[in-house]
Amino acid sequence: MDFKAKIRVIEDFPKPGISFKDITTLLKEGEAYREAVDELVGQIRPWNPELILGPEARGFLLGTPVAYALGVGFVPVRKPGKLPGKTVGETYELEYGTDTLEVHDDALHPGQRIVLVDDLLATGGTMLATARLVEKTGAEVVGMGFLIELTDLGGREKLGNYPIFSLVQY
Amino acid sequence: MDFKAKIRVIEDFPKPGISFKDITTLLKEGEAYREAVDELVGQIRPWNPELILGPEARGFLLGTPVAYALGVGFVPVRKPGKLPGKTVGETYELEYGTDTLEVHDDALHPGQRIVLVDDLLATGGTMLATARLVEKTGAEVVGMGFLIELTDLGGREKLGNYPIFSLVQY
Repeated sequence: MDFKAKIRVIEDFPKPGISFKDITTLLKEGEAYREAVDELVGQIRPWNPELILGPEARGFLLGTPVAYALGVGFVPVRKPGKLPGKTVGETYELEYGTDTLEVHDDALHPGQRIVLVDDLLATGGTMLATARLVEKTGAEVVGMGFLIELTDLGGREKLGNYPIFSLVQY
Repeated sequence: MDFKAKIRVIEDFPKPGISFKDITTLLKEGEAYREAVDELVGQIRPWNPELILGPEARGFLLGTPVAYALGVGFVPVRKPGKLPGKTVGETYELEYGTDTLEVHDDALHPGQRIVLVDDLLATGGTMLATARLVEKTGAEVVGMGFLIELTDLGGREKLGNYPIFSLVQY
């Protein structure tokens, strides 16, 4: 399936100069959504993950059906204050300021095989922070899967040695 | 499966006196997560939905695998400023102040059969606002499914005539 034809591009969102890739037009079509998830699952299954992690909120939209289809658990990566239990966090640099991501401190275990799933790979900042967060717990990032990759933004280079794939490239 | 045994209760979150039902302990166990989704799917399938809707962010965690398993689309219901295209919104009362939910104005069509999925039914305020939002577009809410229902808070009564079910009650 031509997934790119199902993704709507909206110019100047969330700010001028940004060409936003809107995946909601793909998600609302049952056949396209299922096929996209199945292609992600086909790529991720050989990595033999024990858990799928996805950052809020768009990472939930693809990471959870992937986890369901594989029969493994899903761990949400959230902004501070959202998770009710004890958390472990990782702070990272943004263009202006910093941001922090958290998981529950008992969500991951040393040696566990983890795959990260998100809708979009841009500069790779969020994913690198998430990978470091996973590694703080002793678990292992065995791969990362994305629906979309913006190839000009250097995310793949920033993420270095992690196995990465994406279904659609811009 | 005893789903209640997989849900962690955390007292005084997000504020004193609230007994928070933490579903992340269920989600991280592959077998429990899959079985919970399959039970939701078994209840929802007879309603013959054309789309699943879920409010951000925890509604995505259950709504998307339900949509995937049924082979139908998923429409995210979001807070203002999150959706890139033209939206239709519904503002509703909170204990202090108001909140607004939005969907893309081309996400739903008149006559479409819609099922709402969320992690938890409490007072029913979010779900009633979401149902009204759906009805503004001319689509039809044919049912609502929840993992958890807090039966003392009157959500089921507030939602009146909509068919409702939940897997776990407190």
